[in-house]
Amino acid sequence: MNRRAFFVSDRTGITAETLGASLLTQFPDIDFKRTNIPFVTNELAAHAAVATIQHAAEDDAIAPLVFSTLTDPVIQRIVATSSPHFFDLFGTFIAPLEIALARQSSHTAGRMHGVFDSGAYDKRMQALNFTLSHDDGLSPRDLKEADLVLLGVSRSGKTPTCLYLAMHYSLKTANYPLTDDDFGSIKLPKILQPCRDKLYGLTIAPEQLSRIRRERRPTGDYSSLVRCRAEIAMAEAMFRTENIQYIDSTSISIEEIAATVVRDMGLH
Amino acid sequence: MNRRAFFVSDRTGITAETLGASLLTQFPDIDFKRTNIPFVTNELAAHAAVATIQHAAEDDAIAPLVFSTLTDPVIQRIVATSSPHFFDLFGTFIAPLEIALARQSSHTAGRMHGVFDSGAYDKRMQALNFTLSHDDGLSPRDLKEADLVLLGVSRSGKTPTCLYLAMHYSLKTANYPLTDDDFGSIKLPKILQPCRDKLYGLTIAPEQLSRIRRERRPTGDYSSLVRCRAEIAMAEAMFRTENIQYIDSTSISIEEIAATVVRDMGLH
Repeated sequence: MNRRAFFVSDRTGITAETLGASLLTQFPDIDFKRTNIPFVTNELAAHAAVATIQHAAEDDAIAPLVFSTLTDPVIQRIVATSSPHFFDLFGTFIAPLEIALARQSSHTAGRMHGVFDSGAYDKRMQALNFTLSHDDGLSPRDLKEADLVLLGVSRSGKTPTCLYLAMHYSLKTANYPLTDDDFGSIKLPKILQPCRDKLYGLTIAPEQLSRIRRERRPTGDYSSLVRCRAEIAMAEAMFRTENIQYIDSTSISIEEIAATVVRDMGLH
Repeated sequence: MNRRAFFVSDRTGITAETLGASLLTQFPDIDFKRTNIPFVTNELAAHAAVATIQHAAEDDAIAPLVFSTLTDPVIQRIVATSSPHFFDLFGTFIAPLEIALARQSSHTAGRMHGVFDSGAYDKRMQALNFTLSHDDGLSPRDLKEADLVLLGVSRSGKTPTCLYLAMHYSLKTANYPLTDDDFGSIKLPKILQPCRDKLYGLTIAPEQLSRIRRERRPTGDYSSLVRCRAEIAMAEAMFRTENIQYIDSTSISIEEIAATVVRDMGLH
């Protein structure tokens, strides 16, 4: 079964999409076709959104689901006419919040992603620049500056996780690739010893690692399952011996890895 | 005035935090102290969350706000006892959705960030790897592979925007820095002519650009306001002459720049 779902918002639509998509996962046997309609900031855009949604309703001969995070009551009322299945993700909570806080809300457009805080922006940029410039290569001085250092074998997911942590948590995240040189013993590499409290390990199923490495280098020892198994076994042994917390990234998303690291390290 | 707000979820807490924070912006004169309690997946964790929240209530002598995206009804009921100001961001919509879709929900833990779709994962990784390996430097072949190419002067925000577009929209995003060499005329650089339909420009207020550049190189012509003004004027003239859509990144977040680019280019 198919069903259309629209996410309408006055800014980027990130909030509407995030919660809306999460709600839709509760109905796994329906194949939802999703459309984001962002930046609905005036009546003209609201009427255009209604036309788009009603056009889809006619095509499908069934009313689509519409999820809204619109904050302006006038625009909201226009878009609400688009479908009988209109879900007001934002306004639903405003009245009870006004009661809880004993004051009126400001009814301004969702400022979550709009407000410009130059201090926070600078911090985020510094974290991103740090992370980008220290991808696979660290001096002891860099390690001192880092908020966090991820350890793992090549292709275990360090780089995307570092970037996510920098982008979303403004953490200066460095990464240290564990290589053959480090596996002479299962002791922590010397350069990492002074920053033991910043270390976090990533591991991954050897089969998945082998698959990912084959995409980069289709043949040779680097991507062989035997080699992947050996490297992962050594890395995990090191994490355990050295009491480094670690996570298996095999079947979870970057968002979840990052949130877990932040929680485990008490960084948020 | 201060008030505590807790975001409780059974996964990363991203959804609860995103919507909760957006709701709180409607009460700008209250200074909210926010705490994320992620991964509340069993009764033990639920009771621990309740204890944390009630401890805060005693400290503050006022009940905190609690925003929940918990999906398990048993865990949800436990956490709901933590405060009279409990906002069920998820469950509130499940019953009306069940009516709209004429079926029961699965009541499984929020799978938004948990489900592992290896096709989507690969696409995201390919986009990230492409973007990382083509930061400031492109061959004609690379341009052919790109989904999108951002243009702008040095430090106008190209790199973080590219990374965000790759991370969140799985778009292979390249960037082309406009330099003195390109400003001999206001014509499009030759290498970019075959991919005209993939181009999008970034501009920024000269004062902001100068400030950002000074952080990198405190002295010299590179960060001078005169130079920044001249570069921005040339870049904007090129965008207009060549009919390239562009956005002023001065006072908006990376999320908004990215969502605007995706919308304007019809990529989502």
